[in-house]
Amino acid sequence: MRCSVLAVGTELLLGQIVDTNSAWLGEHLAAAGIDSLVQVKVGDNQGRIAATLRALLADADAVIVCGGLGPTHDDVTREAIAEVMGVELEMRDDLALAIEEMFASRGRRMPASNLRQAMVPRGAEVIGQRRGTAPGLVCPVAVTGGAARVVYAVPGVPVEMTEMFERAILPDLLRRSGSPAVIASRVLRTWGESESGLGERLAGLIAELDRVGNPTLAFLASGWEGLKVRLTAKAASGAAATALLDDWESRVRGIVGGHVFGVDAETMESVVLGLLRARGLTLAVAESVTGGLVSGRLTAVPGASEVLRGGLVSYASEVKQELLGVPPGPVVSEAAAVAMAEGACRVLRADVGLALTGVAGPAEQEGQPVGTLCIGIALPGGRRASRRVQFGPGRETMRQLCVISALDALRRELLAG
Amino acid sequence: MRCSVLAVGTELLLGQIVDTNSAWLGEHLAAAGIDSLVQVKVGDNQGRIAATLRALLADADAVIVCGGLGPTHDDVTREAIAEVMGVELEMRDDLALAIEEMFASRGRRMPASNLRQAMVPRGAEVIGQRRGTAPGLVCPVAVTGGAARVVYAVPGVPVEMTEMFERAILPDLLRRSGSPAVIASRVLRTWGESESGLGERLAGLIAELDRVGNPTLAFLASGWEGLKVRLTAKAASGAAATALLDDWESRVRGIVGGHVFGVDAETMESVVLGLLRARGLTLAVAESVTGGLVSGRLTAVPGASEVLRGGLVSYASEVKQELLGVPPGPVVSEAAAVAMAEGACRVLRADVGLALTGVAGPAEQEGQPVGTLCIGIALPGGRRASRRVQFGPGRETMRQLCVISALDALRRELLAG
Repeated sequence: MRCSVLAVGTELLLGQIVDTNSAWLGEHLAAAGIDSLVQVKVGDNQGRIAATLRALLADADAVIVCGGLGPTHDDVTREAIAEVMGVELEMRDDLALAIEEMFASRGRRMPASNLRQAMVPRGAEVIGQRRGTAPGLVCPVAVTGGAARVVYAVPGVPVEMTEMFERAILPDLLRRSGSPAVIASRVLRTWGESESGLGERLAGLIAELDRVGNPTLAFLASGWEGLKVRLTAKAASGAAATALLDDWESRVRGIVGGHVFGVDAETMESVVLGLLRARGLTLAVAESVTGGLVSGRLTAVPGASEVLRGGLVSYASEVKQELLGVPPGPVVSEAAAVAMAEGACRVLRADVGLALTGVAGPAEQEGQPVGTLCIGIALPGGRRASRRVQFGPGRETMRQLCVISALDALRRELLAG
Repeated sequence: MRCSVLAVGTELLLGQIVDTNSAWLGEHLAAAGIDSLVQVKVGDNQGRIAATLRALLADADAVIVCGGLGPTHDDVTREAIAEVMGVELEMRDDLALAIEEMFASRGRRMPASNLRQAMVPRGAEVIGQRRGTAPGLVCPVAVTGGAARVVYAVPGVPVEMTEMFERAILPDLLRRSGSPAVIASRVLRTWGESESGLGERLAGLIAELDRVGNPTLAFLASGWEGLKVRLTAKAASGAAATALLDDWESRVRGIVGGHVFGVDAETMESVVLGLLRARGLTLAVAESVTGGLVSGRLTAVPGASEVLRGGLVSYASEVKQELLGVPPGPVVSEAAAVAMAEGACRVLRADVGLALTGVAGPAEQEGQPVGTLCIGIALPGGRRASRRVQFGPGRETMRQLCVISALDALRRELLAG
């Protein structure tokens, strides 16, 4: 089964927007065992969209077209698909009504131009709109002397596109390919081991998966979102897919479980805040090298205020000493990090303190090389922990990896306590 | 002049990497008046790269191929281009030597596989490598009965690609198109006025530019990087282009100069730090709604430590009151923001204090709607300033816009002082 992707929009060619839809679709098609061999961007030009669709259909069973379904005269994806199908567009009254009601529910009058979005190539099926005003389309295309082909059209807005893909397009593709009806993925987020290190430890399991072919396993390095291990299962039902994923998740965890900090949308921040909340503990952060990024990430989680008392960015060494009570001496050290964590607890009256000090560069500091991170942790009952980590060059990358590394160190201490 | 873009790499189709090169190239080609009508991604497959190149050359004068120039057997862009040109690859000893020297200068032995990078299609010109080991290529392609076409090959690593594009490809494209020899851009970064607002105020100037056609002017909304106004000039020489840009920059500034905070790579953070440094002032930040992001952005600028004493993230209301000395009462108010700024100066012993308090959501707070931001500023000599801003929904977007808005408020106060 081959499915190409066509992203439509002059703003994509002009670089005003980066096309992330194609990458997302490629990733999800591959996880479902569907090849996406070519992905194309064209502008809002009916002739060029139609010509590209014809070229792509010569070599693929299906094409997903993203974008060009809006209400303005620039939006010509519908017309281009009708041209390729060799049919007319027709007004669908039910769609027109749905769009009108969507405007009414927001207390607004529907502009007449939005009626364009109720036009559908004759013979196409509609994917009902849930998040926007544009419906999606499933358009059969006859190919002389070949098997039937299909063109899917979805809005270019990512949240609308992904919802329609998961709800309607992927099931339809799987049905057409004769595959089992359900594909489900689970992402295990890890930290503390490199991709090659995880690969070595999971080598036996990966070899077994290569033999059985289901589920599949893939690594995805995602910066301070963690190193992801994605399992993707095919099965006859949702329950069977879940059972398969449960089984293999526990086998993966049996080998590298200590590095798994979260599943699917769980972030390191949300996991650490959840552990603290469950223990009834409040947190204070003291940062030097990361300059506020740890607090910034933690406060991106709604409800962080129940746990996080606050943070101190002690960029000047005197601030570390005067405000946090760090003893005179080197400030890039595990001892200084622990003193910072204790100071943060005291100043912000929190139960737990987490501190980071290090060297982001461009120059070394106190004889410590660029990329040095010292983590300090203060826990109730006088428990203290510290760690030293060495990262490679790249100021912003290093600072981001410091954030997840420090939060992971705290996670492990909380679990060990 | 038409120039298509072909991004090569299976990892792009699998969504492991998002192709940002095409968007960058599209933007810079458009700024130079060159149309990029189609942009394609394919995997590391010689036949598919060659077929796509042939298809693109049927409709474009030039194609830029990004990626597939590495040393491994997966990297087959060289072979595919030679196939389309109908020539053999030949080993270029000078390139082999350059690659060997590059390894030697880093104290490493060159793996034999890197010699692949010294292979060049017969008749191609080389774009010398400066940032990586892979040279770029300029490959003439004869088309039966048509004008000569050209294929450029560049590495997929963005810093290598952009350097070769600006140094060799754009000048070559302009020479072939018969355009003036030089294209130069200048970006004026603004804050404080919407895109449509800037558009209205600059309407007369834009109409005049539309008539003369050189330079061109474009807006680019870039989140907390500011709203950019890009001028792009064509001229016979670099000096003439600079003179043209100088002239129009001063005309733009004559109308909206108060909103221009920086030029080209200058960020709001670097500009504010520069203003403080020039005045010999140190800074302390107190953040609630942004939870450390202001400090995090400031400390991303190398050398920030000369100006920034530190920051306080006062997420809990008691921290605002106890540590910063904010009087009891509403904490989302301009008065509280000013008290926070004063407290930050006092606690961190800085000359200037900048404070942010607001409501990021999901729920309103103290009767203030989601999206409310209050900025407080404390300056030497008892000078105080505050501001209230209302943003739309979207927690992370709102927090980012808070950061640039608060720094801009401080910038304006420093300039006014």
